[in-house]
Amino acid sequence: MKKILLIIPFLIAGLYTNAQTNTYQKDSIVIAKMQGYILENSVCYEDLRVLCKTIGNRISGSDAAAKAVEWGKLALRNAGADKVYLQPVMVPHWVRGIEEFAITTKAGKKQAFHPLGLGNTIGTSADGISNDVIEVRNMEELEKLGIENINGKIVFFNHPWNQHVSNPFNEYGNSVYYRWAGPSLAAKFGATACLIRSAGSGYDDFAHTGSMRYDSNFKKIPAMALSYKEANELEKLLRANNVAKGMLLSTSHFEADVLSYNVIGEINGSDLKDEIITVGGHLDSWDIGEGAHDDGAGCVQSIEVIRAMKKMGIKPRRTVRCVLFMNEENGLKGGNEYARLAVELKEKHICAIETDAGGFSPRGFSMSCSKAHRAKIQSWKKLFYPLGVYDFDEEGGGADIGPLHKNLGTPVMELSPDPQRYFDLHHTANDVFEQVNRRELSMGALVLASMVYMIGEYGLE
Amino acid sequence: MKKILLIIPFLIAGLYTNAQTNTYQKDSIVIAKMQGYILENSVCYEDLRVLCKTIGNRISGSDAAAKAVEWGKLALRNAGADKVYLQPVMVPHWVRGIEEFAITTKAGKKQAFHPLGLGNTIGTSADGISNDVIEVRNMEELEKLGIENINGKIVFFNHPWNQHVSNPFNEYGNSVYYRWAGPSLAAKFGATACLIRSAGSGYDDFAHTGSMRYDSNFKKIPAMALSYKEANELEKLLRANNVAKGMLLSTSHFEADVLSYNVIGEINGSDLKDEIITVGGHLDSWDIGEGAHDDGAGCVQSIEVIRAMKKMGIKPRRTVRCVLFMNEENGLKGGNEYARLAVELKEKHICAIETDAGGFSPRGFSMSCSKAHRAKIQSWKKLFYPLGVYDFDEEGGGADIGPLHKNLGTPVMELSPDPQRYFDLHHTANDVFEQVNRRELSMGALVLASMVYMIGEYGLE
Repeated sequence: MKKILLIIPFLIAGLYTNAQTNTYQKDSIVIAKMQGYILENSVCYEDLRVLCKTIGNRISGSDAAAKAVEWGKLALRNAGADKVYLQPVMVPHWVRGIEEFAITTKAGKKQAFHPLGLGNTIGTSADGISNDVIEVRNMEELEKLGIENINGKIVFFNHPWNQHVSNPFNEYGNSVYYRWAGPSLAAKFGATACLIRSAGSGYDDFAHTGSMRYDSNFKKIPAMALSYKEANELEKLLRANNVAKGMLLSTSHFEADVLSYNVIGEINGSDLKDEIITVGGHLDSWDIGEGAHDDGAGCVQSIEVIRAMKKMGIKPRRTVRCVLFMNEENGLKGGNEYARLAVELKEKHICAIETDAGGFSPRGFSMSCSKAHRAKIQSWKKLFYPLGVYDFDEEGGGADIGPLHKNLGTPVMELSPDPQRYFDLHHTANDVFEQVNRRELSMGALVLASMVYMIGEYGLE
Repeated sequence: MKKILLIIPFLIAGLYTNAQTNTYQKDSIVIAKMQGYILENSVCYEDLRVLCKTIGNRISGSDAAAKAVEWGKLALRNAGADKVYLQPVMVPHWVRGIEEFAITTKAGKKQAFHPLGLGNTIGTSADGISNDVIEVRNMEELEKLGIENINGKIVFFNHPWNQHVSNPFNEYGNSVYYRWAGPSLAAKFGATACLIRSAGSGYDDFAHTGSMRYDSNFKKIPAMALSYKEANELEKLLRANNVAKGMLLSTSHFEADVLSYNVIGEINGSDLKDEIITVGGHLDSWDIGEGAHDDGAGCVQSIEVIRAMKKMGIKPRRTVRCVLFMNEENGLKGGNEYARLAVELKEKHICAIETDAGGFSPRGFSMSCSKAHRAKIQSWKKLFYPLGVYDFDEEGGGADIGPLHKNLGTPVMELSPDPQRYFDLHHTANDVFEQVNRRELSMGALVLASMVYMIGEYGLE
């Protein structure tokens, strides 16, 4: 057994060196050049500071989102893109209003909470809603209680985040179900409004917003999230049978759709310029905090790919296209339009890479592609290992490049940073510039640039 | 080539499953139990809050260090250790005093800086030092300038942190050389005082302290560090030839040695209780900030190993000994005394594991041991991979367990967390509780507990 173990490292090293000695040396040198440039200068970190601190949060359709489009154009020009242009797209414009939730105890004492409306929720009438509050921990409990217990009440989906899961991205799907579908599920049983325990990993006061969707079969009811601590408080009061009534008020609403844009910057490929590699993040954010990790980080990292290549004189064989997508958070209009145009223009997309999982230390890439594509990428592992990047085994991609994968079959990938902190911050007022570390952000940009360089040079076929 | 690639995962999986199917299943279940307990409850995070916020920084010999000893005893008792005791050790007591550095420009304007004395530095006379300031970037420049240019001057070692290095731990050795040896090297050429550019990776206002050592062949001169930004400022002024004089004042000094303690908590082994596994961090810290990552994190993670095993009813075959070492930062008296006693008491130390590289997401273990020991540890990789821990290839160990390795030949290991943020915070006023993430800290504790469990069960032979 030990003998086999000792042989393996040589086998792995051999994978590269036997067939690709010369390119490995050349590629290492190119990556080292970008490494020196990116880690020393960290211009992406300064880009992020400007985005977060001079524009701040930027929900689709807002004035801030329009300013972010201008910021993106300028940033891509400053990065040295050969071509910078906009892709028009109509986006929804959801506006958060006044949001209140309070309970009256059995003793008649009023206790106010600090709810955060879920994205896309409707508001209440001006008088608000005043009803009993009922806790359900999951779908099974809701169904068991049935219409006779739920009708006319405010449902509190008290589904806890499972802390046991080592990679919080593997838990997100479970918890987000109640955010996404919960309000309509509650409405199906006659609920008048829906509260959820935030879909997040923090033990703190920050409520997490995020998209929800109404099922057109049921009545639309307003929906809000409570922070971990306030969900605990409401749980305690309800279980002590000490809640006489819940009062919920919201003036959140949609306004008319707004013309907005995907912002695009390109480096022209040399001999294979018709082959396009997309690299991008999303420019819109939720309307709280600063959208620093989600997804200012992804935007500035993608811009850094352009800058590092141009500054270091790296001329990719294929066209590298940095896309700052609009409206990932509550509509995906930008991602859909990008894919629609790709079809219409008969573009040849050989790969798309998204970075939308936070500006933390990079650890790998997830991907949705053929086995042969994955094997080719894995044959480059040795270049990435010294950067702390080792995991190329997971399935994945990204929301904005999903339509490209679905409609054109484009191989898609997503940068996988260290996952532990993301869901403490995600969609909260605490997703601010100060939560981003310069070296972590820059390491992510470097790894992204290295992957784009390799695909630009060798393709995936 | 592709075929070989596809075979490798099976080979790796096979390493475990062929020979150890039953133990793998059993071990997975034990680790999953600890995972559920540690990640859900994160008591180590609350322990760290108490240490940082009720005691704060705790340099050897200080009242705070004495309080930290009491805290450690209580924390280990609360964790359920079978036995808690102290190991007396005399430690130095260095006390930071007033620290000033200012320059006068050629135009006669005074400009004050915010220097931070290096640990163990002497002070100046009450009048301070007033001399010319001369910049040297490295040893070669110092030697080239020679005594004729250095004598009677304040030397400013302006050695920049190399940002290009992907793992900052690989750069620390280069930069720390000027902190450790710089003052005596400057004194050799007649310098009256020594300033250094901080040995740290941040682009900020935080100066980094840390140990220095006087070479007894040369005169002791006072030594201070400047933050990145202030080092840039001084560099600018000096290169513009705009510094008429530097004034340096310090009342830092040593007081008499103080009786202090290593704090120890044990779980008795079952059938192999004479075989000891040490797991620990250091209880002392520098006298600024809160010693959160360095090394409050390591202390509470090591205590968590005891708690998780006791709470989950895991009875290790070998004795697990958690050691909170005293005086790692400026003397290593605790680590030396621990090894001395191990020899005197004829203890059988089969392994020692240190955690002193920050409470960030764990990525691997470095180690100094035989090839056979390493191979045995690597055969457990499959258990650690789902926790994001993949790297068992590096050489390493830790300062406090170094004497055990040197004197008894004990195999030593160190937990390797993600390295990007450590040297932004290390030895600065910014190493505070708020810089530690609950899930990252807890993941480190879990990985540590898992490794201790495996060695407790199977040893390293």
